[in-house]
Amino acid sequence: MKVLALSGGVGGARLVDGLAAVVPADELTVVVNTGDDFVHWGLTICPDLDTVMYTLAGLAHPTQGWGVAGETFGALAMVERYGGPAWFRLGDRDLGTHLMRAAGLAAGRTLTAVTAELAGALGVGPRLLPMTDVARPTMLDTHDGTLSFQDWLVGRRGAPVVTRVWWPGPARPTDAVLAAIDAADLIVVGPSNPYVSIDPILGLDGVRAALARRPVVAVSPIVAGRAVKGPLAGMIESLARRAPSPAAIAAHYGDLLDGLVIELGDDAPAGLATLATATVMGDRGDRARLAAEVLAFGHDLPRRRR
Amino acid sequence: MKVLALSGGVGGARLVDGLAAVVPADELTVVVNTGDDFVHWGLTICPDLDTVMYTLAGLAHPTQGWGVAGETFGALAMVERYGGPAWFRLGDRDLGTHLMRAAGLAAGRTLTAVTAELAGALGVGPRLLPMTDVARPTMLDTHDGTLSFQDWLVGRRGAPVVTRVWWPGPARPTDAVLAAIDAADLIVVGPSNPYVSIDPILGLDGVRAALARRPVVAVSPIVAGRAVKGPLAGMIESLARRAPSPAAIAAHYGDLLDGLVIELGDDAPAGLATLATATVMGDRGDRARLAAEVLAFGHDLPRRRR
Repeated sequence: MKVLALSGGVGGARLVDGLAAVVPADELTVVVNTGDDFVHWGLTICPDLDTVMYTLAGLAHPTQGWGVAGETFGALAMVERYGGPAWFRLGDRDLGTHLMRAAGLAAGRTLTAVTAELAGALGVGPRLLPMTDVARPTMLDTHDGTLSFQDWLVGRRGAPVVTRVWWPGPARPTDAVLAAIDAADLIVVGPSNPYVSIDPILGLDGVRAALARRPVVAVSPIVAGRAVKGPLAGMIESLARRAPSPAAIAAHYGDLLDGLVIELGDDAPAGLATLATATVMGDRGDRARLAAEVLAFGHDLPRRRR
Repeated sequence: MKVLALSGGVGGARLVDGLAAVVPADELTVVVNTGDDFVHWGLTICPDLDTVMYTLAGLAHPTQGWGVAGETFGALAMVERYGGPAWFRLGDRDLGTHLMRAAGLAAGRTLTAVTAELAGALGVGPRLLPMTDVARPTMLDTHDGTLSFQDWLVGRRGAPVVTRVWWPGPARPTDAVLAAIDAADLIVVGPSNPYVSIDPILGLDGVRAALARRPVVAVSPIVAGRAVKGPLAGMIESLARRAPSPAAIAAHYGDLLDGLVIELGDDAPAGLATLATATVMGDRGDRARLAAEVLAFGHDLPRRRR
């Protein structure tokens, strides 16, 4: 069964890590949000691609949700001494990734090609596809004005209330993304932030239509009324004007979904197939257990539409 | 007394460190070789500028002659995992310097301006001037073909016999370099490699003529027939076809010099004022002692010519 996962950063990355444990590498493709990408210290930084790659390579920091385990911050310390921008904590090992990516891009290779090289060198088996090879940054209108995603999340700690999410760049997915969707037997939407991790992918030309032809299950990023990680709960309140819940997630994705995996004890949304299980992932065994449950749920789902 | 020093890397940097201890900061300018500069991991690396800057800032590694004390190599470890170029050991703190330099250059500032910003942020008082703001790489014809300086020194460990040193770039010093020479009361040529650290400076248009109008003293980089550090001894043998000695240094610089500081016990070259003292520098007190002796020697020198 060919599986295609859509992922943002940490939550999606952990589910992908579980999928990688139960799906043969050549049957698993991950389409990763690049709306968070930005240029810092002259280097193109791809936070979600790197989180997925480091997680699959077993290099990710075990708890903090970004960066590499055992990281050092020597370059950052010097940049601070020079009075350079230090608000985004780039680690030294992480810098090695950004430098190699920058070299590949400067040599004229696509982000898709460079990502394949980097992930391959780290022994990552599943295919990682950036959603696009062109800049399409996620922009947030907030009560403090319009901010880029990193300025908002890291620079302002996600505090300013978000009133609109939008993308100024061209809505051009890669051919590889569209082909991978068409080839998939099941689409798994990770427990990522719908507004700033999954919507950037769904908003690309032709992606939503292609997904509508495949069975799609999502894992709810809302558990017991709160986001497992990150600023999602507040965004649901300000953007959807409702309480955070699996039903809010189901309503956001609308007819894209054939099924939703929710946390045990949470209320199931009406009119949608659901699987209730333990969705908050810890170690790799836990991730694999959830992934297997998601796949079985998706496999057995009656197609509601199409 | 306004002092202008010409410097390459470690030996020159240590003498400059001593000069900085005995000359007021606003009366000391250092013109630094940029012939070793190269682009690595997409970043402009200036080994001699950085060695001088780190040494004056008290950050230099105490013994190895390059890099920062207490350095880590996390980025390098990752670059190696990616199969990237790891032959030049860029440390993490050092990378912070290169990233900030690259950002300044990318913003359109000159190397002279960026160097002033970086050195100022590290609390370096004397003015550091790159010899030029344009690329003028030192090239070496060797028994193994033509190599750039870093390819030869680091990539091949200085092993291939050098038969010629040359520079393909424009021979354009900065206006700041020429003005600083004209303003100097004494020129001090550091105990750097004449062929690959000082000749790159001397070969720039107008520099040798400007220096000829000032009193010039040099410190011999050859002690007891050997180079204090680096590949100089072999270069004297292959390029000047004579044994390494203070006389070989004096002959190389020719009528540029008004005096030469040599090691106690070494033979003085004929026909040139010399000061024999302990020239192998250890700690900062030792550097300051030598610098004071060099300044006193230069101050009292009768001008031989001009």
